[in-house]
Amino acid sequence: MADALKIVVVGGVAAGPKAAARARRLDPRAEITILEKGTYISYSACGLPYFISKEVPEFKELLATPVGVMRDAGFFKKVKGFDVLTGKEVTAIDRGRKVATVRDLATSQEETYPYDKLVLATGAVPVRPRIPGIEAKNVFMIRQPEDGLAIMAALESRQPKRAVLVGAGAIGLEMAEALVKRGVEVTVVEAMEQIFPGLLDFEMGAILRRYLESKGVKVRTGEQVTSFGTDDEGRLSRVYTDKGEFPAELAVVAVGVRPNVDLARQAGLDIGETGAIKVDRELRTSDPDIYAGGDCAENFHRLLNRPVFVSSGQLANIQGRIIGTNLIGGRAVYHGMVGTTVARVFEYTAGGTGLSEAAARREGLDVVTALVPGPDHAHYLPQSLFVGLKMVADRATGRVLGVQVAGPGDCAKRLDVAAAAITMGATVDDMAQFNLGYAPPYSVAIDVLVNAAQVMQNKLSGVAQALTPLEVQALTDQGEDIMLLDVRTPAEFAEVRIKHPKAFALPLGRVRDKAPDLPKDKLYIPFCKLSLRGYEAAKILEGQGFKRVKFMDGGVIHWPFELEYGKP
Amino acid sequence: MADALKIVVVGGVAAGPKAAARARRLDPRAEITILEKGTYISYSACGLPYFISKEVPEFKELLATPVGVMRDAGFFKKVKGFDVLTGKEVTAIDRGRKVATVRDLATSQEETYPYDKLVLATGAVPVRPRIPGIEAKNVFMIRQPEDGLAIMAALESRQPKRAVLVGAGAIGLEMAEALVKRGVEVTVVEAMEQIFPGLLDFEMGAILRRYLESKGVKVRTGEQVTSFGTDDEGRLSRVYTDKGEFPAELAVVAVGVRPNVDLARQAGLDIGETGAIKVDRELRTSDPDIYAGGDCAENFHRLLNRPVFVSSGQLANIQGRIIGTNLIGGRAVYHGMVGTTVARVFEYTAGGTGLSEAAARREGLDVVTALVPGPDHAHYLPQSLFVGLKMVADRATGRVLGVQVAGPGDCAKRLDVAAAAITMGATVDDMAQFNLGYAPPYSVAIDVLVNAAQVMQNKLSGVAQALTPLEVQALTDQGEDIMLLDVRTPAEFAEVRIKHPKAFALPLGRVRDKAPDLPKDKLYIPFCKLSLRGYEAAKILEGQGFKRVKFMDGGVIHWPFELEYGKP
Repeated sequence: MADALKIVVVGGVAAGPKAAARARRLDPRAEITILEKGTYISYSACGLPYFISKEVPEFKELLATPVGVMRDAGFFKKVKGFDVLTGKEVTAIDRGRKVATVRDLATSQEETYPYDKLVLATGAVPVRPRIPGIEAKNVFMIRQPEDGLAIMAALESRQPKRAVLVGAGAIGLEMAEALVKRGVEVTVVEAMEQIFPGLLDFEMGAILRRYLESKGVKVRTGEQVTSFGTDDEGRLSRVYTDKGEFPAELAVVAVGVRPNVDLARQAGLDIGETGAIKVDRELRTSDPDIYAGGDCAENFHRLLNRPVFVSSGQLANIQGRIIGTNLIGGRAVYHGMVGTTVARVFEYTAGGTGLSEAAARREGLDVVTALVPGPDHAHYLPQSLFVGLKMVADRATGRVLGVQVAGPGDCAKRLDVAAAAITMGATVDDMAQFNLGYAPPYSVAIDVLVNAAQVMQNKLSGVAQALTPLEVQALTDQGEDIMLLDVRTPAEFAEVRIKHPKAFALPLGRVRDKAPDLPKDKLYIPFCKLSLRGYEAAKILEGQGFKRVKFMDGGVIHWPFELEYGKP
Repeated sequence: MADALKIVVVGGVAAGPKAAARARRLDPRAEITILEKGTYISYSACGLPYFISKEVPEFKELLATPVGVMRDAGFFKKVKGFDVLTGKEVTAIDRGRKVATVRDLATSQEETYPYDKLVLATGAVPVRPRIPGIEAKNVFMIRQPEDGLAIMAALESRQPKRAVLVGAGAIGLEMAEALVKRGVEVTVVEAMEQIFPGLLDFEMGAILRRYLESKGVKVRTGEQVTSFGTDDEGRLSRVYTDKGEFPAELAVVAVGVRPNVDLARQAGLDIGETGAIKVDRELRTSDPDIYAGGDCAENFHRLLNRPVFVSSGQLANIQGRIIGTNLIGGRAVYHGMVGTTVARVFEYTAGGTGLSEAAARREGLDVVTALVPGPDHAHYLPQSLFVGLKMVADRATGRVLGVQVAGPGDCAKRLDVAAAAITMGATVDDMAQFNLGYAPPYSVAIDVLVNAAQVMQNKLSGVAQALTPLEVQALTDQGEDIMLLDVRTPAEFAEVRIKHPKAFALPLGRVRDKAPDLPKDKLYIPFCKLSLRGYEAAKILEGQGFKRVKFMDGGVIHWPFELEYGKP
């Protein structure tokens, strides 16, 4: 009988424990040890904002299994059958001798761990921007349990009135919600010109921005924090930006993370162009006895067909399982991801999967897009809410490249369906006939996602011609002779309407009769709340011989500029 | 200029109006007329149970657009630009002369409508079983608005105490909920041995049955209504079955629908083996100038690769759009469906997509299945609820054939993701790496659907060996020497456990230590609440040299037989 396989795993969160547990189940004899530098293992970092908001009443719930068993060293030993050692920093890997050098952080003593197979699951660390004053008291990053506990302590002890969130990505926005729920006034400062840059296109970010502002969050985009000012005791008191300054007693800086590759670099492993550890599709590094997975390793984007760096607890778990299989001689292959991200922002859900329009255009792709919001279920049942939705497809092939969602309705469902479809290479023709579950509490007969795909078909075939809100604004700025026809009902118009000098109301039911009176030389741009009636009106005008008609994508819901409320 | 195309559409709900509206948008000159026998057009039949439960406060909302505009003849004329004539029954089609003969139901006069293209959207009619007494007062079918209004009137005027629902499909169960909400005691009688036959496998139906019973609904399966008894005034008073009798003052018979093909048959069009109108993939009947869609026409099942008959407002709309395109010379092709059905049953959601295990086995397919329930989102956020889930895959190819869901959690999302994936031909390997949106309010890192696919991978590769609850029961009945190990925590065991003479408690954390004391000759069947810890325990026992170990699929959640509650 051969010697038991010695497996050493560096890193005790997500990919590491998953790889170890999988290897253990497949090989009961293997000797498996996880070495973790920190105190906590196998925690849910994604849960920290909900701990800070007090939705999660106890910190330890982030460290426990669903039935309340702590995922500590004892749990892993008893249940999973391997050792997890905390406070152990791997300082070097001798790949020739196959030995890891480890410093015990409590005793400062050095130890060595021989291995047959090694797993790097060293994760990522928050990017710490070089902002003067960032070392001030009450300026936090958020990544590890300690960060969450420190923010919590600051909230409890100092009761800050005002907070600044630097960075309007998922973590920044989740933290904005958490802090508002704790009674703190929140300002979000984002260097890019929109909320959720990278994930959402501008118009989708605009929906979310308007909503955040309605919740009392101040949003400052296109603005950079230049320094943090402190009081006499070195505590944050003021934030200075390239556009102004404002008081704040708490700051959370969430401008991204970078892969933690120090150990891999020291060991001479290949680092990819993304800055993360290079791995093949079996998640093996340039050393065939060393695997890497989770945030420290390069990921693979199915649509871009190249390595990317992302931080994702989900993908870390998927990769950990693959590594576990391969550690004991299996041949599991990682297929890659499509960049799916979702976040709850108060009662809204926002997310994206695949490529945004901006990302697709950066890749040089010729794309068709549509903004097609819709109700999440039958309007006659209470609490039917809208799902804001943007779809991006490749013009030549019709392949769906990306879907973004934002709104109060059940956006998460449509996002996941889109993620599955994009993963499977669906075209808009496929999606336009998706046989999703229809019952009034869950959807309308033609689900918002299916409807969006049908609109995309119309656009690809030339049946529908539309302008995006940004294109409408550009035409306005150029002084084009346009007429924006708001074809909603008078009641809808009275409630809210877009603020635009060329917008006027003509309810859909009157378009057919009124059309003969309209001058035919203008460019008509009908729109409604969503898009459907705008499209309908465009077809009516076309049918009556109007040559210059394009409906406006996304209607009032997706209008990213100013709105007017109340009686006109 | 050629003459305008004359289009006659027979049927004013779903497929008919959709085809007409699409054709109108694509061809502004076409002369389009919809002829509808009934009073109401373009209504939401699926909304009737919610009207009866009073969740929909006003009947007219089922007939209105989301912004409250009535979808009546005026609406279709003004907005959509075509005529809808109600009370017009098409009695014959002269295909040679291309003329439809129509009887005006108000005047009884006969009229003729010439056509270039004709659309049959005559829908389906409820199956009326030959039960003596079915013509009694207060025995209803439910399909059309009139049916809903009649049930409503009976509830308001007679205030029945007890109702019977004949048929435990989606409509029967939705009506059961509606009637319970109206304070009526409900008994469901189903001829098959389970709830939701056809859609759900037995174990999935069992979850739903247990839940229905907890809501006070009496469920009688494997039982047939033999007659309805009446009082002196001819009103329903008693229900007789092949197994007994009970009082009831209201009955709703929902045992399925059949396609309405009378007109098509009269016109000599081909009727398929399913009993519905035969159509090609462009939805053309055997007469190239006549299209058919919606419930009157044969549908096409993507997995079975053959025509089927189904009733679906969603598919009717998808087909109507295709017909509208083809009416004016387009070449749209219907890709087919995967049988996705979802229903809300009180606070549970139940549904299925693709093939059930039973359906797949009837087709002679060699399948692998798994019962893999899981939480719908992170356990540490309030109201994380379970999604009961069954997956069926083809053993040879790993292709996912079907997914069923039932439970209080967000089942609808997983169902729709599965529907998209199955439509796109996903295998369990694809699904095991689906990059779905992960954030604690929406899912766990490894979503229940992805986890189920991973379990299927383990089963397909032989890593995991499991028994279904039905197989465990069969072994029990055969007197096999089995040991059912409940590896949940003592607290979970104290709350609820399966009632089985060979079940005993051994928490997962103690399995590793206790294993050496267990006799090795028995067949060990570990299980937990879901499946994960049961699988973990099985791998621990295997690792310690036990040769006969299989975990039980689906755990306590999917145990379809008796449970015990409270302290043991």
